[in-house]
Amino acid sequence: MSGADVYAKQGFGASSGFGEAPALLIVDFVNGFNDPQMFGGGNIPQAIANTKRLLAFARGKGLPVCFTRVVYADDGSDAGVFCMKAPTLRVLTESSHASQVVDDLAPIAGEYVLRKTQPSAFFGTDLAAWLIRRRVDTLLITGATTSGCVRATVVDSMSYNFRTVVVSDGVGDRATGPHEANLFDMRQKYADLHTTDEVMTRLA
Amino acid sequence: MSGADVYAKQGFGASSGFGEAPALLIVDFVNGFNDPQMFGGGNIPQAIANTKRLLAFARGKGLPVCFTRVVYADDGSDAGVFCMKAPTLRVLTESSHASQVVDDLAPIAGEYVLRKTQPSAFFGTDLAAWLIRRRVDTLLITGATTSGCVRATVVDSMSYNFRTVVVSDGVGDRATGPHEANLFDMRQKYADLHTTDEVMTRLA
Amino acid sequence: MSGADVYAKQGFGASSGFGEAPALLIVDFVNGFNDPQMFGGGNIPQAIANTKRLLAFARGKGLPVCFTRVVYADDGSDAGVFCMKAPTLRVLTESSHASQVVDDLAPIAGEYVLRKTQPSAFFGTDLAAWLIRRRVDTLLITGATTSGCVRATVVDSMSYNFRTVVVSDGVGDRATGPHEANLFDMRQKYADLHTTDEVMTRLA
Amino acid sequence: MSGADVYAKQGFGASSGFGEAPALLIVDFVNGFNDPQMFGGGNIPQAIANTKRLLAFARGKGLPVCFTRVVYADDGSDAGVFCMKAPTLRVLTESSHASQVVDDLAPIAGEYVLRKTQPSAFFGTDLAAWLIRRRVDTLLITGATTSGCVRATVVDSMSYNFRTVVVSDGVGDRATGPHEANLFDMRQKYADLHTTDEVMTRLA
Repeated sequence: MSGADVYAKQGFGASSGFGEAPALLIVDFVNGFNDPQMFGGGNIPQAIANTKRLLAFARGKGLPVCFTRVVYADDGSDAGVFCMKAPTLRVLTESSHASQVVDDLAPIAGEYVLRKTQPSAFFGTDLAAWLIRRRVDTLLITGATTSGCVRATVVDSMSYNFRTVVVSDGVGDRATGPHEANLFDMRQKYADLHTTDEVMTRLA
Repeated sequence: MSGADVYAKQGFGASSGFGEAPALLIVDFVNGFNDPQMFGGGNIPQAIANTKRLLAFARGKGLPVCFTRVVYADDGSDAGVFCMKAPTLRVLTESSHASQVVDDLAPIAGEYVLRKTQPSAFFGTDLAAWLIRRRVDTLLITGATTSGCVRATVVDSMSYNFRTVVVSDGVGDRATGPHEANLFDMRQKYADLHTTDEVMTRLA
Repeated sequence: MSGADVYAKQGFGASSGFGEAPALLIVDFVNGFNDPQMFGGGNIPQAIANTKRLLAFARGKGLPVCFTRVVYADDGSDAGVFCMKAPTLRVLTESSHASQVVDDLAPIAGEYVLRKTQPSAFFGTDLAAWLIRRRVDTLLITGATTSGCVRATVVDSMSYNFRTVVVSDGVGDRATGPHEANLFDMRQKYADLHTTDEVMTRLA
Repeated sequence: MSGADVYAKQGFGASSGFGEAPALLIVDFVNGFNDPQMFGGGNIPQAIANTKRLLAFARGKGLPVCFTRVVYADDGSDAGVFCMKAPTLRVLTESSHASQVVDDLAPIAGEYVLRKTQPSAFFGTDLAAWLIRRRVDTLLITGATTSGCVRATVVDSMSYNFRTVVVSDGVGDRATGPHEANLFDMRQKYADLHTTDEVMTRLA
């Protein structure tokens, strides 16, 4: 039996759907993750292009919008095990070019730009509180990488009981294999998957 | 370039190593995850067998040991989005056979048996506090499934700055593809991977 | 200048008000906290009587209701620093009479009964997720003790951005001084204070 | 019976002691909390003076040192219920004079300066992870205000199972009543209280 068959037989892969109050979360679309010489590559450029469309739509609808950036202290005083596994991450400091949101998605006043040091946008941040303040019940997630910070954020989003929607062509990864494998895991257990166009149609 | 090449070039896949004070965390090795008619199958039986050897070793060394169980309220009052994605999970209640730790790994007095409702053993539990109390700095993780609760737990373990070791033949999954894909992700970004024998040699 | 004057001058003590979706949280009204020979005394009996009225009202309105209990493992495997400061707490185990919700407030099906080991009902629990699932934006809090688990829960409730209402005659303490001092702190910085009657009028 | 008698009779007020690996946490000693025209006053200046002595001692011993600052986004996009209760807090932005650590305690390289938006230094931050990384088991806490951010931080520190020491003359408040009342609560239930001199003698 293939993986998908086993999951279906055991009752996974049902839909959690949309609620009444969505927000858009854009994970780590910063310059360093859009640069193949740093942490980028693969299908990330296309994911940014799709996110640009979705961001315009979300702004038109007045949805809450949150961006995340990975930011470590200049002196590395908050670097931990993640930076042992991937020491290059430490270049992402407050003022480094690599840690700024890409120009195509530049945040505007009132949108929340969240610093984080770990994969999940919820870990060690007040993202849950920010969403509660706005009575959000559905989180639309784009960003990079699918197999890294997006996946970690999706698991926490679901764990906090937000209906979680992975925008399947709005998330990208430096390599195709992990991208596809993580879309599979997330669809089976944690989130619904929809394209940018599907999300916009659904919320129109 | 294959996925592994890209990761290597970008600086991922370094080792976080062992610290001085390890603990053993056994994720969701309960009857329901050892039953192919429920949530089990694949290489989970072998992973339990290897965990049995590692558990005996850990007890001999006096390491802190923690087990997790997925437990929902009998009336479903705490079921959330996870149970929307996988409604069958709700059979895992306090007294159900499916939610008891498998006989081969039966906990003994002083070992912590933790209830959880979400994938990560850290989410909505006091596991971090329990580990802090014992000054643990290294978490050895076995359990099921590799692509589900193990992966989620590993990400949080690393995020809390525990040096995290995935016991590669002590974790199992209902399907081979997600098992392998998640071992890849975890090794690149979150944890070191070692077999049961390697862990025992390292800690001997 | 008295304390209240200083707080007023510096801009504290404003109101956070009610939102649109309240829930009722009843903190640690278990037998042990209603027994002056254990952890009870003071004005706790009156607070339980008022909570009984508010609980009936909340059920009539169909509000989400959550109870907390302090529960430690029978073998003490999860006892930590709190049990060093107050070793007597360890008698509160899953099946002990002392850790059961008082008869006057017996939970009914669908109400959430939450185990906790620390003062705050949010710490190491999935309470935030449970409230998010119900889109709650306002938390009405009764329970014991005002200076202990109620205060800790109120701070976390506010930190998660729930508009927080302390039911001033529905919270009780073993001693009057800490009861009053903590009502002062909470009103200045974290929550609005209303009597049971005021809350019922407001939500009628 | 006075409050203290009740607490003693019920088994509170025992000591949690010192462990082997202390760190120093300095809560919100920023200009705004040292200015009686903003959030300061009372015994805060003396508490800063004592903290200055303890900081020098901690640096001499090579203890991990962490400072907290309250920081809101310039556009208020992360302001929540706390800023409804105390709207004046919103002046504490990244570059405002009020949110900088006081000159007498200026952090040096390698010391962690943590941004927070809520009372507790642990809420929505990676402080627990930072302490785990250093295998800290004992947290020495100074700062302002005793009845606010110090108290909230102490409760979380204890909940995470750090042995928690409130430096009784290193914490200060804008008003004496809440200062004393919160010292009482913390000593009974959450922390040991020691003066600066006692802490230095103990760790010498």
